[in-house]
Amino acid sequence: MLIIGEKINATRKSIDAAIKARDAASIQEVAKAQEKAGADALDVNCGTVPASEEPEVMRWLVKIVQEVSDLPICIDSPNFVALAAGLAVHKGKPIINSISGETIRYQSVLPLVKEYDAGVIALCNDDKGLPSSRKATLEVGESLITRLINDGIPLYDIYLDPLVRTLATSPETVVDSLEVMRELSLRHPGLHFVSGLSNVSYGLPERRHLNRAFMVMSIANGLDTVIVDPLDPQLVALIYASEALMNKDSFCMKYISEYHKGTLKV
Amino acid sequence: MLIIGEKINATRKSIDAAIKARDAASIQEVAKAQEKAGADALDVNCGTVPASEEPEVMRWLVKIVQEVSDLPICIDSPNFVALAAGLAVHKGKPIINSISGETIRYQSVLPLVKEYDAGVIALCNDDKGLPSSRKATLEVGESLITRLINDGIPLYDIYLDPLVRTLATSPETVVDSLEVMRELSLRHPGLHFVSGLSNVSYGLPERRHLNRAFMVMSIANGLDTVIVDPLDPQLVALIYASEALMNKDSFCMKYISEYHKGTLKV
Repeated sequence: MLIIGEKINATRKSIDAAIKARDAASIQEVAKAQEKAGADALDVNCGTVPASEEPEVMRWLVKIVQEVSDLPICIDSPNFVALAAGLAVHKGKPIINSISGETIRYQSVLPLVKEYDAGVIALCNDDKGLPSSRKATLEVGESLITRLINDGIPLYDIYLDPLVRTLATSPETVVDSLEVMRELSLRHPGLHFVSGLSNVSYGLPERRHLNRAFMVMSIANGLDTVIVDPLDPQLVALIYASEALMNKDSFCMKYISEYHKGTLKV
Repeated sequence: MLIIGEKINATRKSIDAAIKARDAASIQEVAKAQEKAGADALDVNCGTVPASEEPEVMRWLVKIVQEVSDLPICIDSPNFVALAAGLAVHKGKPIINSISGETIRYQSVLPLVKEYDAGVIALCNDDKGLPSSRKATLEVGESLITRLINDGIPLYDIYLDPLVRTLATSPETVVDSLEVMRELSLRHPGLHFVSGLSNVSYGLPERRHLNRAFMVMSIANGLDTVIVDPLDPQLVALIYASEALMNKDSFCMKYISEYHKGTLKV
């Protein structure tokens, strides 16, 4: 399981304020806390600043985070200029968040994936928007995988996101997302799957239970990468438990070592 | 989801002591607490008393529990004389825990299922013991379902238990259990599935995370009946979340009503 820490995101008020004040220390604390809690990579998003400033801010964020952490960064922007700015200063192998089947996005992001030998999150949508059925999602996903591979991206660098919809408004599509992961993971061993888990619970109360249950179900269907708050102990315990149950944790060594670290005492 | 409360079980020290002292009040408190917490049925097991006393004790347990609760009881014993004793005094439609493909057990329990029009938990084993592969488990399960139906038991009264093994010693068989549920639930719409969730985590530390994750995965593969502690708030929240995600909770009404009751504030 690759745990990408989600907390350095400008949609969070404290991060937005720290970015606007160029308060490096506060952001670095969040980076260190996530690394200490077991994150394998750190998502960095500064989407609340004006688009014209985003490249400079992204460059600054990547630099200050890598000053205090050796973890790879998941550079998160719909703006390919901001992606390029962050990538240019990134040390190590980055993850780009994200490419999609949309023509403009695909054509602008693909060269960055290749230039920086990056991992890339690939969203299952295209110029027609979000696919409206399980079948259509499978087709868009399959087409995107094929295209990336034909363009020279190794399968193991692709993190497919089936783009789960909101349970409250599209109750039948949660099962569809699970089935898409299941089917594509059977077709493409080695392909990674990632999901923005919290979309599923939008508009419902006490969302964490829905997010946790959806994560566990997704892991059982092929999910191997999560963008989550690694400081949520119940969630993290369920990740290690799920990996063990799926026989992806040999002799439950990781589960037992997390037990000895005290991670599971929640 | 049918939630069967597991707490009136003589393997728990406090229940064992209450049974031996014929302390009805203590057991009735456990029954009422489980009902208040949302249990739909109550498992009752007195397996620690000598076999010769078990029928009388089971009769007493069923009586005192039904004095304070209208819930159906899941009468839990490998001893068909004890099952018969409990059934004889049960009011309403009982659940028998359990029948299996073992010849003697099948032949002795089947008449009770028919006589009392009972629901019945059907364990996926037979005279050869526990099936050793996914394929063998499917065959034993299929054969047991067919036999029960041919013997006049309606599909909706059968609660199949695929008998998950222990993760620590049989790591590959957890996925097998999930796949067996998935396959048999596709083949037999309306068949119920139940699982003794805690077996999976035997021998490992902080077992509740494994039990919870396995429950969520099982619900995603057809499980609709659980024998659990309904007073575990994290577990119960995950049950309601999982049902909503699987689109078995129309408009998330149950999830939202549990939110209003305060059940999800954990």
